[in-house]
Amino acid sequence: MKFHLGCELDYTVAPPATMFLSLRPRQTAGVKVIREKLEIKPDARSVVAEDRVEENHFERISPSLEGDLFLRYHAEVNARHRLIPAKKLRAANQAPLDGSVLPWLFPSRYCQSDLLGRLASQKFGKHRSSLDQARAITEWIHSHVDYVRGATNSATSARDTLTECAGVCRDFAHLGIALCRALSIPARYVTGYAHRLDPPDFHAFFEVLIGNDWILLDATYLAPMNGVVLIGVGRDAADVSVCTTFGTATSQRQAVWCDADKDFKPVRHNGDVLVSLNRAGK
Amino acid sequence: MKFHLGCELDYTVAPPATMFLSLRPRQTAGVKVIREKLEIKPDARSVVAEDRVEENHFERISPSLEGDLFLRYHAEVNARHRLIPAKKLRAANQAPLDGSVLPWLFPSRYCQSDLLGRLASQKFGKHRSSLDQARAITEWIHSHVDYVRGATNSATSARDTLTECAGVCRDFAHLGIALCRALSIPARYVTGYAHRLDPPDFHAFFEVLIGNDWILLDATYLAPMNGVVLIGVGRDAADVSVCTTFGTATSQRQAVWCDADKDFKPVRHNGDVLVSLNRAGK
Amino acid sequence: MKFHLGCELDYTVAPPATMFLSLRPRQTAGVKVIREKLEIKPDARSVVAEDRVEENHFERISPSLEGDLFLRYHAEVNARHRLIPAKKLRAANQAPLDGSVLPWLFPSRYCQSDLLGRLASQKFGKHRSSLDQARAITEWIHSHVDYVRGATNSATSARDTLTECAGVCRDFAHLGIALCRALSIPARYVTGYAHRLDPPDFHAFFEVLIGNDWILLDATYLAPMNGVVLIGVGRDAADVSVCTTFGTATSQRQAVWCDADKDFKPVRHNGDVLVSLNRAGK
Amino acid sequence: MKFHLGCELDYTVAPPATMFLSLRPRQTAGVKVIREKLEIKPDARSVVAEDRVEENHFERISPSLEGDLFLRYHAEVNARHRLIPAKKLRAANQAPLDGSVLPWLFPSRYCQSDLLGRLASQKFGKHRSSLDQARAITEWIHSHVDYVRGATNSATSARDTLTECAGVCRDFAHLGIALCRALSIPARYVTGYAHRLDPPDFHAFFEVLIGNDWILLDATYLAPMNGVVLIGVGRDAADVSVCTTFGTATSQRQAVWCDADKDFKPVRHNGDVLVSLNRAGK
Repeated sequence: MKFHLGCELDYTVAPPATMFLSLRPRQTAGVKVIREKLEIKPDARSVVAEDRVEENHFERISPSLEGDLFLRYHAEVNARHRLIPAKKLRAANQAPLDGSVLPWLFPSRYCQSDLLGRLASQKFGKHRSSLDQARAITEWIHSHVDYVRGATNSATSARDTLTECAGVCRDFAHLGIALCRALSIPARYVTGYAHRLDPPDFHAFFEVLIGNDWILLDATYLAPMNGVVLIGVGRDAADVSVCTTFGTATSQRQAVWCDADKDFKPVRHNGDVLVSLNRAGK
Repeated sequence: MKFHLGCELDYTVAPPATMFLSLRPRQTAGVKVIREKLEIKPDARSVVAEDRVEENHFERISPSLEGDLFLRYHAEVNARHRLIPAKKLRAANQAPLDGSVLPWLFPSRYCQSDLLGRLASQKFGKHRSSLDQARAITEWIHSHVDYVRGATNSATSARDTLTECAGVCRDFAHLGIALCRALSIPARYVTGYAHRLDPPDFHAFFEVLIGNDWILLDATYLAPMNGVVLIGVGRDAADVSVCTTFGTATSQRQAVWCDADKDFKPVRHNGDVLVSLNRAGK
Repeated sequence: MKFHLGCELDYTVAPPATMFLSLRPRQTAGVKVIREKLEIKPDARSVVAEDRVEENHFERISPSLEGDLFLRYHAEVNARHRLIPAKKLRAANQAPLDGSVLPWLFPSRYCQSDLLGRLASQKFGKHRSSLDQARAITEWIHSHVDYVRGATNSATSARDTLTECAGVCRDFAHLGIALCRALSIPARYVTGYAHRLDPPDFHAFFEVLIGNDWILLDATYLAPMNGVVLIGVGRDAADVSVCTTFGTATSQRQAVWCDADKDFKPVRHNGDVLVSLNRAGK
Repeated sequence: MKFHLGCELDYTVAPPATMFLSLRPRQTAGVKVIREKLEIKPDARSVVAEDRVEENHFERISPSLEGDLFLRYHAEVNARHRLIPAKKLRAANQAPLDGSVLPWLFPSRYCQSDLLGRLASQKFGKHRSSLDQARAITEWIHSHVDYVRGATNSATSARDTLTECAGVCRDFAHLGIALCRALSIPARYVTGYAHRLDPPDFHAFFEVLIGNDWILLDATYLAPMNGVVLIGVGRDAADVSVCTTFGTATSQRQAVWCDADKDFKPVRHNGDVLVSLNRAGK
């Protein structure tokens, strides 16, 4: 499936400032950027920085002039979403507990899985396979948490969302991750572009490792999982902001778009098929 | 300097359980394990698992019998602690902001640096170099936080310690890390053996990246930094428990020892010289 | 019903210290202390202090000697527990929203009802009467929170218990209060003696105002509500500790007992009848 | 001193809704409302509700029509602020620990004094008198917390402000109260009108009980203490919102004004004289 996607970002900056921008699609097997362009005005040198841990790519920019900074990124991307039958994943059961999955099992800034063991077992422990547990978690979040813009802020964590029952995509993802990890299912935070997200914005969702596949899940149900193009992965939102700034850079405006080809057919949530873009070790 | 170190750990286990034990010294440049032995009774297969992220080594054990599990690890280790003049580090200033340091700048489960920016700037921003900031933080914690066993638990975070002013080595380290990161100084959690720690136990402290050197700091002042042998590094205690268990394993008893050679001369805290065991990228 | 009840408390004190002890049964309509005795060794002057707000009685003691302080209180009490049919209370519906009930509707230290509105409505809003809502809350807590000694401490709040799903009587009561207030049902914390509580201890539970009656509820199900003798009421545990100390007094030992007459017949939880010891305005 | 004060409030309401409005000056000794008027459009019956606990007055309104609700209150008030020399209060020392002060010593929803004992002793324990401790706390907050609109929300507590170092008048007051109570100084939350507050708004500050006088303190320094007219007192903001709503009422607009007579001479913060409007037991 071909996607046209991109974003425009306006900042006001005051040097010295270093910005790590996370805008480019994550290039895993099956994902290919056909063409892309990053414009920066006024012109600033952009260096690609790779995060050794999660292999995310960042554009590092150190604007030299005080004032407005305009960024425009657009790309044409081919993404082959693997569709995997639920049946197969149900059989696969739990990911092997080796060193490579530990970081996705430990609690993190916004996902206090260490505190949710009883609750997760109580509510979701009865399901036999990791897949069914992770899906039951996703459905439960979908029906118990209201999508409310402005209800939360950048300090809101999975625990908060569990008691306050309101939030945005970031909060839905954090809660999903925390509950999965509490059941020893490796889980991580994913950001990306999503086909015709309404209102348009970057999107956040999560991946769980079942067998050797990182399965995409989204408790907001706002984007079909075969309609997303990933940008970054991390333990939670702390690792993959669209823009991480050291120094002063204030966001003034943001526009995001993503369109799949005409013949796009959404894979529905909770159907017989799941979607994956990453394999274990990636 | 040669160290004799080790530990004995008694658990009660109920299979199926998988334990990731973090007991072996971290082998970086200058550190060499001359001889070592890990005994497990009843006999259980131990597999070395490496955490791809922080390059920690774990012994993974899946005990097959219900009941007592006894572990004894002892080793003879040569460790060459690099002594670096404060003067040199003061000139080095801030570590370069590239992709490899990002994980050590982001907030984590127990180190909510994202919430401490104002406080850190207010209290420690006046110091010019990263070294002086990190040392001022260490001294401030040392004088404002009381070392009180039992005052905290495994859910206690840097924010809690900041208001409650009491804790153990783990809490001192978390607060140091959170405050350093809030000033854009890469910081991470380190566990290890410490020469004649009283009472004997595993120890926790932290490292900050200054120039290309990870500098050891310990706000408890309980161990001279040239008297430690590292085990693991991580974002915080979530990453490097002595024992991470999936399933049921209950600690019953623990003994830890570490002795440097006779001619050991402690490097004092806040002197003209600092200690490092790791370089950037490690 | 006649009750024999009392307690022995050992403290180590260091003057100057002022202790507010909350040991005597609350004397509301239907409750009569037939005989009682408070022994203090070494002899110390005890002054009755009344809390103007909740009309609790405290024994205020300012021990003059450093060292051990021994307190023994025992009493014989007649308590007439009013039994009220659920049917009648179901019809009574919500308590009138006047000034006198406001303090029992506002959030307090351990009962953050302001944060639980969505969750409470979602889970319990479907029940028509205040009684049914309060009982559904009590039953839900009983089945979702595990009674685990040592799982919590004096800083644990209703929010914590909601996510951690473990606690003691105090935590069960806090959660019940917070959820009731979130549905605009006036609710307060109650401490007391409970018939043959096992293991013996002071007990904590809660009251909700339905019509003009404060109805007793206990999500632990550890004590039948017609087997309790109240000591104090408050917004939460912050208001009615057994002992509030200004200065240094450390508890060393505690024994508590409470026995109803032989012919005591427990009223079961969730039956057709509820129990009340206080009326509105008291 | 004569004050002209008032407010206009626009709400959108959807019956059934009960609103408790806290708009009228608290009438203690020395404060006299000369004339006042409360307009409500469309006309709605207003009943005065008194909170038995803190003796606050509320206007209780149950609007019968869906749609806009307009409230306008204005009054002419004579207020005699008692000026008390710091010297006299310094000698008075601590308020007597009797039953009537206990509610002002216990922790509350937004003032977790139970967790701040060490910190308060460490920072402010060296001052001899309660007055000097309370003033040192006020000055410290003033210099360490930034006044930032929008930095906090209705869930923000004293603990949060202590670590985040930013907030509005409500947060400054909560932190002051929490630290005073942690030193056993009775403290409570006060709302009121303030002479030419800029930007115009209701104001929040706090009172501490020294001897028999409730002394007014304001860590924001935004209003001279002899330029305020009190509305309500409570344990914290949970008790004295301008408007507490059961049901649906959404604030749309708010205007507040307060002007003292021409000859108003502000008493400065941290001078030789303090200001009181309430005595012990009120």
